[in-house]
Amino acid sequence: MVFIDACFRRPTPYTPIWMMRQAGRYLPEYMEVRAQAGNFLNLCHNPVLAAEVTLQPIRRFGMDAAILFSDILVVPNEMGMELEFIKGEGPNFPSPITTQADLDALHVESAAEKLEYVYETIRLVRADLESQTALIGFTGAPWTLATYMIEGHGTKTYAVVKKMIATQPQFMHALLEKLTHVIKGYLERQIEAGVNAVQIFDSWASALEEEAFFEFSWRYILEISEYIKAKYPHIPVILFPKGISGYLERVRAIGGNFDVFGVDWSTPIELAKAKLGDRYVLQGNMEPTRLYSKEATRKGVEHILHVMNNEGHIFNLGHGMLPDLEPENAAYLVDLVHSLSKR
Amino acid sequence: MVFIDACFRRPTPYTPIWMMRQAGRYLPEYMEVRAQAGNFLNLCHNPVLAAEVTLQPIRRFGMDAAILFSDILVVPNEMGMELEFIKGEGPNFPSPITTQADLDALHVESAAEKLEYVYETIRLVRADLESQTALIGFTGAPWTLATYMIEGHGTKTYAVVKKMIATQPQFMHALLEKLTHVIKGYLERQIEAGVNAVQIFDSWASALEEEAFFEFSWRYILEISEYIKAKYPHIPVILFPKGISGYLERVRAIGGNFDVFGVDWSTPIELAKAKLGDRYVLQGNMEPTRLYSKEATRKGVEHILHVMNNEGHIFNLGHGMLPDLEPENAAYLVDLVHSLSKR
Repeated sequence: MVFIDACFRRPTPYTPIWMMRQAGRYLPEYMEVRAQAGNFLNLCHNPVLAAEVTLQPIRRFGMDAAILFSDILVVPNEMGMELEFIKGEGPNFPSPITTQADLDALHVESAAEKLEYVYETIRLVRADLESQTALIGFTGAPWTLATYMIEGHGTKTYAVVKKMIATQPQFMHALLEKLTHVIKGYLERQIEAGVNAVQIFDSWASALEEEAFFEFSWRYILEISEYIKAKYPHIPVILFPKGISGYLERVRAIGGNFDVFGVDWSTPIELAKAKLGDRYVLQGNMEPTRLYSKEATRKGVEHILHVMNNEGHIFNLGHGMLPDLEPENAAYLVDLVHSLSKR
Repeated sequence: MVFIDACFRRPTPYTPIWMMRQAGRYLPEYMEVRAQAGNFLNLCHNPVLAAEVTLQPIRRFGMDAAILFSDILVVPNEMGMELEFIKGEGPNFPSPITTQADLDALHVESAAEKLEYVYETIRLVRADLESQTALIGFTGAPWTLATYMIEGHGTKTYAVVKKMIATQPQFMHALLEKLTHVIKGYLERQIEAGVNAVQIFDSWASALEEEAFFEFSWRYILEISEYIKAKYPHIPVILFPKGISGYLERVRAIGGNFDVFGVDWSTPIELAKAKLGDRYVLQGNMEPTRLYSKEATRKGVEHILHVMNNEGHIFNLGHGMLPDLEPENAAYLVDLVHSLSKR
């Protein structure tokens, strides 16, 4: 697979591409399946429908990798936290974690097993996907999941979880350890079900100052990655801590056993290359809003391909695909990356 | 004034400190005045009350600088845009800018003059402030103001304004030029009314990828700064583009005539010092949530003072003060910085 070869820095005939949130609301065929499912969580719980939306962008655009359709919050959900998706407001845990009793009540040993609908989705997708197309499994990072579990929902200030960091760091670590344990089992089972690579999304890495990021997020991500790589050395591990361009020096100094570093759009690709490009393959990082215009898309692609020079690079957006984009522009992007990077 | 000396890198007996949003909701005396004013915008419009809340934190904590109490959105408001503050949701422009006619309708020549209530606030504060305490005036940066004017309100995705950047860059530049013109006059008049330094807040700098930041934000900020420095070389200009730790190399390469660079908490202070510390005095950058705990505060202060080593530094938070903080911890912070940095 071109994508897997690129993850391991093996020669490829062109630079592979996939797009974060490539299965999503900008596709009319996704909206149809979503309507059929009734709501977002039903869609995640239904392997047949989840497999269908996973495959849609591949059929339409021919990316080099599909990414499992699911949501990072199915993990806390199966750890026993009630989860609802409120229209226009996003996810919500009506009973966030505040006390030791809440922490003790989390299901740790059974959660990974209960996510069987995810593994079934993977089996269905893999059976239908052409052999040259990779399937990427994923999870949220412990810090990002913990933030949702403590705040209850999206937040602009992260005041609740940061107050916990400042005043009850041990409580925070206890939650992060539980999540780390569950996530190891979750990724293992995804791999056993057939994914060819895994990505850990730390969407809220950018909420943490440097010291806190390394103490409360990165160490747990590296622990998960080490565990997976020790057991499955042939499976590439991709880490995507969003918005930490100021911390790359320390990421390099700490090192860690993973294959690909996901670069978000706020990190100049030259900077990521200079700090990490010789150690890790880089994935990214076009600003998604460039897709509003073909001209801006072309300029973005040319710049990134020029900097990376066909070496140790997987093309991606620097954040998720936007719901109001024309599918035509996604097709333009995929074709452009493939044609401009052809060796 | 210790603060002004520090802005110009002259020797000072200790490291001066002020805190972004130091006049605010965490102070019970602020809440009283705010209640008296009826709503937030009334408070901005009333020089006697605005002067009172500007002075409150100085009386209580003895910071080295007061910052004018106002809001960045009074500028678009006086350019003719209706503005409302919705309880729990923040500011809102019910008729955001979408067409050329909207752009043409903005008052450009008269806006700075109409902000007379701001200048009157400055005169009242300066008359009451002790001579060793500086008064800082401020404005929002053109990009941050333009974003509000186009989106209409706060946004997580910046999709409307970024679509405009991708598809109508010239329209965007036309708006930014108008704002730049108004802001020059606004800062000039603040200086004539008595402020001792000015700060330009680019709160939404972090919404832009590197190329777009320099094209749509930084160049206008530098244009304003050059204008002010040419006319008032004795007035320090402080620039605070939030969340651009990945772009510091280019900030350095471009240069510019300003005195102090404000460092937000997501930029490690070591990194800011290495990239810019020899050219500009640095202001910042303690993570505000450290103030939830005295221990975390002490560690943060010690680290920052250690890195900056009493040289070219003004202490501040790396973002605004939080509404749910104990005033006692703010007092602790101010005293700690003063005592630990005493030469």
